[in-house]
Amino acid sequence: MTVTESLRIDIDRLLSRLAALAEIGAIEGTEGAARLALTDEDRAGRDLVLAWMDDLGLDVLIDGIGNVVATMPGFEDTPPVMCGSHIDTVRTGGRYDGNLGVLAGLEVIETIQTAGVELGRPLSVAFFTDEEGSRFAPDMLGSLVYVGGMALEEALDIVAIDGAVLGDELERIGYAGSAPVPGLVPHSFVELHIEQGPVLESEGVTVGAVESVQGISWTEVTVTGQSNHAGTTPMSMRRDPGYVASAAATVVRDIVLELGAPQVGTVGRVDLVPNLVNVVPASATFTVDLRNTDDDILSDAEARMHSAIEALAAAESCSVEFRSLARFAPVTFASEIVDRVEAAATRLGHTVMRLPSGAGHDAQMMARVCPTAMIFTPSVDGVSHNPAEYTAPADLEAGANVLLQVMLELSSA
Amino acid sequence: MTVTESLRIDIDRLLSRLAALAEIGAIEGTEGAARLALTDEDRAGRDLVLAWMDDLGLDVLIDGIGNVVATMPGFEDTPPVMCGSHIDTVRTGGRYDGNLGVLAGLEVIETIQTAGVELGRPLSVAFFTDEEGSRFAPDMLGSLVYVGGMALEEALDIVAIDGAVLGDELERIGYAGSAPVPGLVPHSFVELHIEQGPVLESEGVTVGAVESVQGISWTEVTVTGQSNHAGTTPMSMRRDPGYVASAAATVVRDIVLELGAPQVGTVGRVDLVPNLVNVVPASATFTVDLRNTDDDILSDAEARMHSAIEALAAAESCSVEFRSLARFAPVTFASEIVDRVEAAATRLGHTVMRLPSGAGHDAQMMARVCPTAMIFTPSVDGVSHNPAEYTAPADLEAGANVLLQVMLELSSA
Repeated sequence: MTVTESLRIDIDRLLSRLAALAEIGAIEGTEGAARLALTDEDRAGRDLVLAWMDDLGLDVLIDGIGNVVATMPGFEDTPPVMCGSHIDTVRTGGRYDGNLGVLAGLEVIETIQTAGVELGRPLSVAFFTDEEGSRFAPDMLGSLVYVGGMALEEALDIVAIDGAVLGDELERIGYAGSAPVPGLVPHSFVELHIEQGPVLESEGVTVGAVESVQGISWTEVTVTGQSNHAGTTPMSMRRDPGYVASAAATVVRDIVLELGAPQVGTVGRVDLVPNLVNVVPASATFTVDLRNTDDDILSDAEARMHSAIEALAAAESCSVEFRSLARFAPVTFASEIVDRVEAAATRLGHTVMRLPSGAGHDAQMMARVCPTAMIFTPSVDGVSHNPAEYTAPADLEAGANVLLQVMLELSSA
Repeated sequence: MTVTESLRIDIDRLLSRLAALAEIGAIEGTEGAARLALTDEDRAGRDLVLAWMDDLGLDVLIDGIGNVVATMPGFEDTPPVMCGSHIDTVRTGGRYDGNLGVLAGLEVIETIQTAGVELGRPLSVAFFTDEEGSRFAPDMLGSLVYVGGMALEEALDIVAIDGAVLGDELERIGYAGSAPVPGLVPHSFVELHIEQGPVLESEGVTVGAVESVQGISWTEVTVTGQSNHAGTTPMSMRRDPGYVASAAATVVRDIVLELGAPQVGTVGRVDLVPNLVNVVPASATFTVDLRNTDDDILSDAEARMHSAIEALAAAESCSVEFRSLARFAPVTFASEIVDRVEAAATRLGHTVMRLPSGAGHDAQMMARVCPTAMIFTPSVDGVSHNPAEYTAPADLEAGANVLLQVMLELSSA
């Protein structure tokens, strides 16, 4: 075993940084935190992580959308091996989602610095603005701007759910930086993240080698009918948009099961108006979330969903409108990095499996500009976006050590 | 034609009273009004109607629950032929629901007084407290107490949706009267009301002879599953209460159609938690409103609904709880009065049909103590509980004249 192969991160230091960051915006009585993008809590979280970056002597760049990239000094213009994720959270956030990828990056760099290992390329750790999209849509906004997927001016004009303008909020919290976007193209990018799903835990596997990100299709469907008294309106005279919404949700399930895994589909939001026990609704608005790693099958699912819902609405004499809320094509990660994740996990004695990511991540934006992959660690009960989100320390340690090994390899590859 | 057969109400006077009452609590920009039970608006509405009762020289009694009964003087203890309804409204009330039955009663009495017709029995017109149940549950509360279906003390302790106690509110608005409940048993009771449904309009019929009130069953169903990420949770691992709620709503429709008219069923309220596009819900709460004029079939519908939803929940590994919100048995009205309604309408040259009431009314409580029936007038588009509620003046006039004729007959029968 070489010196670098025997290097290990310090799990206690990683856990204490995760705990310290979770103190900021802490949700009382839980392990979780709320640091919506560009709020005072987000600023305080950024300040803490920036202080840690400074402690490690890293060169820190803040760009025009507030992304922060910290790089080992002394390599001049050599493109870095970058890792990172985000430190903003949803309103009911846990302490691992996003934060793990950033703080494990610090841990990797500190471990290598302490050991005095010489690298062929510098390492960087980044955190990207507004990954969650909970305050400013779309999600993965900072990394999207970083890779040139959205113009900075357009991003700065985005209005939050609370009415604030993104550019104003960036200025207010002091994170409107001067580094240009699109940003520096790294040699490669690796993101460690909790799975946020139940697959690794249910398979009894410690490390996920993420080979792709599912394509995502979000559609908002509004069905309009005729509000009426639930007691006095014969069934034959009803134009019930609530019924159409219910039938649509069962049809979405049918379509998804017919297409088979990895196709998934969810009706997670249903709003009836006026939503009263004794009133046939006037309208029903609901969302359909469809995901697949295969874009053709995803498009097929969308088309089937549209025509089935149109038929259901027509049969009930209701009108229907579709609005696309999000549509991202699937992303395939660089196989040579996925292979390295798999090999490193095996070498370290961990069980490992390849799997797609069901959730969106900053890594899928970085994949547009450089070889990229992700490492997943198990989420207990698949719970995420919830203060109860939990990954066992041994699993966090395994994931961070795989990140360490893969970044070491890439920095000399 | 006798003198009494040629008597007609004054539609302009009726319309002007309907308009004057709708001024109180008027919903700006509409024809509707909001006078929730025992609010300041309800008090002002009561004061106005009481002034009209005084103008007609009627003997007014106010009982312990705030019901107001105005009776022609001079008949000593002869039980009156009573009509009436309510003047409280839902939050988005129209100007006809309830008000029509009360103001048409005044109109009938004024018409008879003006013509100097001698009667064998006095006429009364009543308005009952909190028929809508929008502020204090249950609905039809005043008439329920009037007929002895609920003890006064129990009713006075009811707490409103806004936290107020019914007895306190009655005192506050000055309508805690001294007349005893249960109240005086009338000779008979006739309630004129808008249909609040589309049947008369769609059949092209002017007058409805209401022969029964449907039985009502309201059930709240809560399904609990496992909240999860919509992207990362395979279909095979889901426990989705939103799916169970949707499938349940389609099954309710199937059961209702299989049982056939007059069975109706509605899922009017659906609440998913957390109700987000990308989250498999943790729980779903929805209501099932089932109605039938036949209590055995209604019970059968309830039983089928229960077992079907239990099976759906079990198949999705979800738990389910049922809570009864309301259960009223069907009411059959007195056929001799229904016959009189039908005959009077025909004699006056109007089209008429027998039909059940899908909604609950004060008349169904009065039917517990005396021969009772109802007269319906058409509702345009079946719209009610909505400021857009509308019945054409000619139809109001027809309904009020049928009420006049039936009350004249009953007062000498």
